[in-house]
Amino acid sequence: MAENRGVVFLGQNKVEVQSIDFPKMQNPAGKKVGHGVILKVVSTNICGSDQHMVRGRTTAPTGMVLGHEITGEVIEAGSDVEYIKVGDLVTVPFNVACGRCRTCREQQTGVCLNVNPGRAGGAYGYVDMGGWIGGQAEFVFVPYADFNLIPFPDKAQAMEKILDLTMLSDILPTGFHGAVTAGVGVGSTVYVAGAGPVGMAAAASAQILGAAVVLVGDMNTDRLKHVADVGFVPVDLREGDNLGELIEKILGKPEVDAAIDAVGFEAKAQGKNGQEAPATVLNSLMSVVRAAGGIGIPGLYVTEDPGAADAAGKTGNLSLRFGLGWAKSHRFYTGQTPVLKYNRQLMQAILHGRIPIAKIVNATVISLGDAAEGYKAFDSGAAKKFVLDPHGLLGK
Amino acid sequence: MAENRGVVFLGQNKVEVQSIDFPKMQNPAGKKVGHGVILKVVSTNICGSDQHMVRGRTTAPTGMVLGHEITGEVIEAGSDVEYIKVGDLVTVPFNVACGRCRTCREQQTGVCLNVNPGRAGGAYGYVDMGGWIGGQAEFVFVPYADFNLIPFPDKAQAMEKILDLTMLSDILPTGFHGAVTAGVGVGSTVYVAGAGPVGMAAAASAQILGAAVVLVGDMNTDRLKHVADVGFVPVDLREGDNLGELIEKILGKPEVDAAIDAVGFEAKAQGKNGQEAPATVLNSLMSVVRAAGGIGIPGLYVTEDPGAADAAGKTGNLSLRFGLGWAKSHRFYTGQTPVLKYNRQLMQAILHGRIPIAKIVNATVISLGDAAEGYKAFDSGAAKKFVLDPHGLLGK
Amino acid sequence: MAENRGVVFLGQNKVEVQSIDFPKMQNPAGKKVGHGVILKVVSTNICGSDQHMVRGRTTAPTGMVLGHEITGEVIEAGSDVEYIKVGDLVTVPFNVACGRCRTCREQQTGVCLNVNPGRAGGAYGYVDMGGWIGGQAEFVFVPYADFNLIPFPDKAQAMEKILDLTMLSDILPTGFHGAVTAGVGVGSTVYVAGAGPVGMAAAASAQILGAAVVLVGDMNTDRLKHVADVGFVPVDLREGDNLGELIEKILGKPEVDAAIDAVGFEAKAQGKNGQEAPATVLNSLMSVVRAAGGIGIPGLYVTEDPGAADAAGKTGNLSLRFGLGWAKSHRFYTGQTPVLKYNRQLMQAILHGRIPIAKIVNATVISLGDAAEGYKAFDSGAAKKFVLDPHGLLGK
Amino acid sequence: MAENRGVVFLGQNKVEVQSIDFPKMQNPAGKKVGHGVILKVVSTNICGSDQHMVRGRTTAPTGMVLGHEITGEVIEAGSDVEYIKVGDLVTVPFNVACGRCRTCREQQTGVCLNVNPGRAGGAYGYVDMGGWIGGQAEFVFVPYADFNLIPFPDKAQAMEKILDLTMLSDILPTGFHGAVTAGVGVGSTVYVAGAGPVGMAAAASAQILGAAVVLVGDMNTDRLKHVADVGFVPVDLREGDNLGELIEKILGKPEVDAAIDAVGFEAKAQGKNGQEAPATVLNSLMSVVRAAGGIGIPGLYVTEDPGAADAAGKTGNLSLRFGLGWAKSHRFYTGQTPVLKYNRQLMQAILHGRIPIAKIVNATVISLGDAAEGYKAFDSGAAKKFVLDPHGLLGK
Repeated sequence: MAENRGVVFLGQNKVEVQSIDFPKMQNPAGKKVGHGVILKVVSTNICGSDQHMVRGRTTAPTGMVLGHEITGEVIEAGSDVEYIKVGDLVTVPFNVACGRCRTCREQQTGVCLNVNPGRAGGAYGYVDMGGWIGGQAEFVFVPYADFNLIPFPDKAQAMEKILDLTMLSDILPTGFHGAVTAGVGVGSTVYVAGAGPVGMAAAASAQILGAAVVLVGDMNTDRLKHVADVGFVPVDLREGDNLGELIEKILGKPEVDAAIDAVGFEAKAQGKNGQEAPATVLNSLMSVVRAAGGIGIPGLYVTEDPGAADAAGKTGNLSLRFGLGWAKSHRFYTGQTPVLKYNRQLMQAILHGRIPIAKIVNATVISLGDAAEGYKAFDSGAAKKFVLDPHGLLGK
Repeated sequence: MAENRGVVFLGQNKVEVQSIDFPKMQNPAGKKVGHGVILKVVSTNICGSDQHMVRGRTTAPTGMVLGHEITGEVIEAGSDVEYIKVGDLVTVPFNVACGRCRTCREQQTGVCLNVNPGRAGGAYGYVDMGGWIGGQAEFVFVPYADFNLIPFPDKAQAMEKILDLTMLSDILPTGFHGAVTAGVGVGSTVYVAGAGPVGMAAAASAQILGAAVVLVGDMNTDRLKHVADVGFVPVDLREGDNLGELIEKILGKPEVDAAIDAVGFEAKAQGKNGQEAPATVLNSLMSVVRAAGGIGIPGLYVTEDPGAADAAGKTGNLSLRFGLGWAKSHRFYTGQTPVLKYNRQLMQAILHGRIPIAKIVNATVISLGDAAEGYKAFDSGAAKKFVLDPHGLLGK
Repeated sequence: MAENRGVVFLGQNKVEVQSIDFPKMQNPAGKKVGHGVILKVVSTNICGSDQHMVRGRTTAPTGMVLGHEITGEVIEAGSDVEYIKVGDLVTVPFNVACGRCRTCREQQTGVCLNVNPGRAGGAYGYVDMGGWIGGQAEFVFVPYADFNLIPFPDKAQAMEKILDLTMLSDILPTGFHGAVTAGVGVGSTVYVAGAGPVGMAAAASAQILGAAVVLVGDMNTDRLKHVADVGFVPVDLREGDNLGELIEKILGKPEVDAAIDAVGFEAKAQGKNGQEAPATVLNSLMSVVRAAGGIGIPGLYVTEDPGAADAAGKTGNLSLRFGLGWAKSHRFYTGQTPVLKYNRQLMQAILHGRIPIAKIVNATVISLGDAAEGYKAFDSGAAKKFVLDPHGLLGK
Repeated sequence: MAENRGVVFLGQNKVEVQSIDFPKMQNPAGKKVGHGVILKVVSTNICGSDQHMVRGRTTAPTGMVLGHEITGEVIEAGSDVEYIKVGDLVTVPFNVACGRCRTCREQQTGVCLNVNPGRAGGAYGYVDMGGWIGGQAEFVFVPYADFNLIPFPDKAQAMEKILDLTMLSDILPTGFHGAVTAGVGVGSTVYVAGAGPVGMAAAASAQILGAAVVLVGDMNTDRLKHVADVGFVPVDLREGDNLGELIEKILGKPEVDAAIDAVGFEAKAQGKNGQEAPATVLNSLMSVVRAAGGIGIPGLYVTEDPGAADAAGKTGNLSLRFGLGWAKSHRFYTGQTPVLKYNRQLMQAILHGRIPIAKIVNATVISLGDAAEGYKAFDSGAAKKFVLDPHGLLGK
């Protein structure tokens, strides 16, 4: 059991599965701690935000083990772990959080003050997020286990729905946070920018929150087809550069109650031959959200972007038409999702059959060894969410 | 009683008190209505947002009667007015609102859907806000009177506090909205950008909401002195261009819980010789607000700015360092304040002596005839809030 | 058009359709008003709270025209009505509300301060609610029409879903208010006490709000069968007097996240031969709701109950085990539902096919002339919601 | 350092300071744990809820060490304590909470699911609250220290305000919770039932929350005088049994926006010779709170009361006039205060001089050895809050 393998970032567009250290009960500073557990990873997903790093749009160092979407079985528990037990099958929030600081106490686990010396907020296997080792691996260490982990109440039942439950570690709560902070409620008309996994999770979330109708915009044919296949309304952004007109064709008016940015800073301009245009999504959302409406922004915006097209972009500056948002009394919510605020209730909804999220994001199982191919296919726009299966437990 | 005089906008930096029509019981489209009242104006204030027009930074047409901060006595009531009575002394929200549309029903009277054919939201005497005649005048028409007006419970008591109560029409609720939407609560540390009347009202609001400490930043010596005189902590922005460092000198750390932008698009860069820099306030607030904190933005941002320094500014675009806000999980609230959501409770606080707002904004009474001088003095940065006294009722 | 017929209360267990006056544009005090409309009633439902009156459990006077669940077409509009038009097909909230007082402005239209001289809150055709004439009739007067009414966006589309939309006037928002105030959200486990129409509407509301599972308890065989038929989980209260045990059999633990009292003061004790026991529902809900959970109470409790079994009951006193609720940090929400706070969003959900409420409450159309039979069948516990069809427009 | 003394409950009306064990790093089940600390108690207050036990109105066992209002210095920290340091001066919430269960994660630390096998919710030195040893002692053990404790940022500054800061462990947050859950906000008119320390803390809280005016009712001459001395409005309940009339004399109408029950189940009937009447406070609050208003209930109600006057009372049943609350759309919040939700912000307000709570509750220092006299004086209605000084550090 002292062996381990994981997905390692080796530079722009290069990832590889390599032998890595077996997890130790210690934090990134090398201090032994009693509050953590070691997990045998049952499933671990490739995330769009991993792609930002792999594409070289961040300052991620080579050699880093990737992976922050983790579900696993507890095989060892520290001396201070009282409620999580060896054998528990648990969902791991992508945020590392201490459960003891002001922001964690206030349910803002996305900006924990203790787990990252550089800034507020930690994550597994991610640049600038505290140096916690990633979980696209056979085994992984999770600190503050009693606080961070939620065990599934029945392991056999959970394994039957494991492709749904694996989405609890990140994208389902992330889409849900986007929908909640956009103000989506019963009867809302909703527009989601981006039909990648987070966009689809936002659409699923809007629906379980009671939205009357959910539109999803993208410029990728396969993804748009998938949007329609799972019951949402596709908006093909290649058909024009005026989002309001495209929406009006569907809803009869060029306006929605709420919108979610599931794209982030690598956005491309709407229309036929869109170039990268980092402010385009936010500006188009201001144009279509009703007065007094909200905009949820789970899509990632960064403070440093070495690959940006211009100087402003390199420091994370956007040319926002803020005056328009102001005239419409818009509100904007940003930031990493505090997964722990939502994952228990979403687990309940999955276990009772209310959110078929695996189907909605088109969960596709591949072996850990095929991770590099998964990264490549996802980057090329496959309408799939890749789930790695390090121990061959997912039955596919 | 068929005569009337009012402050008329005559072009850049030019206002004049002229004879104007006595108010008619009709809306800007010329339709007779039964839901309005005619007020004898008891007090009416000059607002910073009037200055944007007078400085030529908007598309306001000449000939417009200015004024949206109105307190007055009802002298005539329409046939459908059931609860407001002739003789009532009332506060008028600056927003014109119908009380019958979706947004008004949801307390979002700042973006009423019925009173402005051009866009959501109406106001008296303001460009692009529906054509309602302004109230810097002897008499004014107020529509939907039962919905919009709040009578003071005791006229004699109210006249004793009239310089406080006159602030209910706009700046006190506007400052309060800024503080509430920034998330100010009991024990908060708060930074307010701008020591003009809205900034001072935001500071007063933060205090009545229970803030532990309220800092107010500006670059005007008189205004900074006034900040200290009324019990807040001045931050002299000419002392450096790093707001965090200035705050750290006071609070011991370069961070506040919440911040309020009481400046808007005509912001000037911090430091000794600040040039106009429309994004500077928002960018500096993102640098000092704690992770998971809020930013309330009552300061005005516009969709068209003919006087802007560059092309982006002319369409209301700002170069925001949005990536920084995102990394800190900030939330941003914008828009015109829905005065009616707050003015009743603030009236109660004033009547029971809890908010000495006249003193805090340095209310200064001048005659209607001196309005032009008031505009000029206010534009030059006087640490005063000018209150016009059209009928000589304010006893000064 | 000057003729009219309506359902008249003639004393205990006696209602009759009689000729009544054609509506006048005036309020109960006889004052002519311009803010109202006259509706041709398209559908109007019999409500459980009508039954309290008909059973003689209130001080309702004989001669009163009943009916507060009204949907209709505008055939005449007062001089002050600006936005509602003749020809509009509209839903009428059961609450009469002025739209001009403090509570209406704050979305608390269930306790409008102006429409009932006796206490806060008005309704059509109801004892102690201001004397507004009921709408189980061919025609009815509705005051403050611009504020109270919501027109359906497309009449033809609306007539296709009219049996769903007719539930917007009362029971769907009432069930929804119960669920919202109980704290139901995505993933909640929910128990609804009572499988009458309000209980079924609460269950439907819990589901659209994202509940993981919804249990509905009753002691009527037909109603329990209907609960299961439309997809909820029936709890047969005749099977034991310990609600927690019954719930544990279904959920594996004797506890739910949230509960809704859709029964009210005429509750009967759980178990085989339940006698009237007005506190029994609330006490049982405290026993099963989790610590820190909420209890929504749309079921009616009264201030005077001439038919109560004992002196305490006659003044609306209940022997509540409040210490138990306190030990569990429960919160309790009571009162008439402010329909206008919810009906627009619920209309949107119905129009987009998200809530098949007619099926869930088993909407059953009968002619106006058959109203008395409808009252009798409903009182005997039929698992139906009766919809009167005064003009034969409902096609059944 | 292996010695300790504490206040021990010896039966009805009997407490005594005795030698007790020095704290061990273990939970009540006797399990060694690494997450706790041992505190040298700097201050520890006598609470009204201690009196319920001492008066014999609970099933508290003899031999129990009392005390749940604790402030102290950390003298030893367990192996898993990472952020709290030896030497820190800390405030201890009266609730024992694990920081790891669902309710703790959701800020409902008053009903922690892990620290009390008997029911949700733990406390130090209290009957039925998990068996944690009380802190009216020289030394005490506090579990889950990183989660539960908040260190004061500057020890010297804190010692200057220690009589204010000692109120953070219970009564100030408890009064604040009462005010918040009653819906008190800027401009509210507020009535507080009971002028004991919790009532005074509720009044102070209402004021910092911005209340326009705060009334406090009692029947004790000294306490009423103290109410007026510290700036609130006393209501002498001996002057009549109609609370509305007494309020009308002060406010001009028989109604307040919000009310707080700071009395609980040992209430006595209003009027000259009030007998114990457990429902009287709640019933009177329903009579005076406005329609749509809220009632916060920090006053304790119990599930078992061996000393109650009748059978209903023995099981915590009250004869509530619930129909009246329902007619007014009241909402009711109950339960132990989750101190950790509020104490950080209240600490900030104290440190910046915004809440002189020691003066408002009349904090009175006595030695640990005088604890029995303090209990007696407090029980007799002294207008004082007794603060025990186990190590003679409070300088009085």
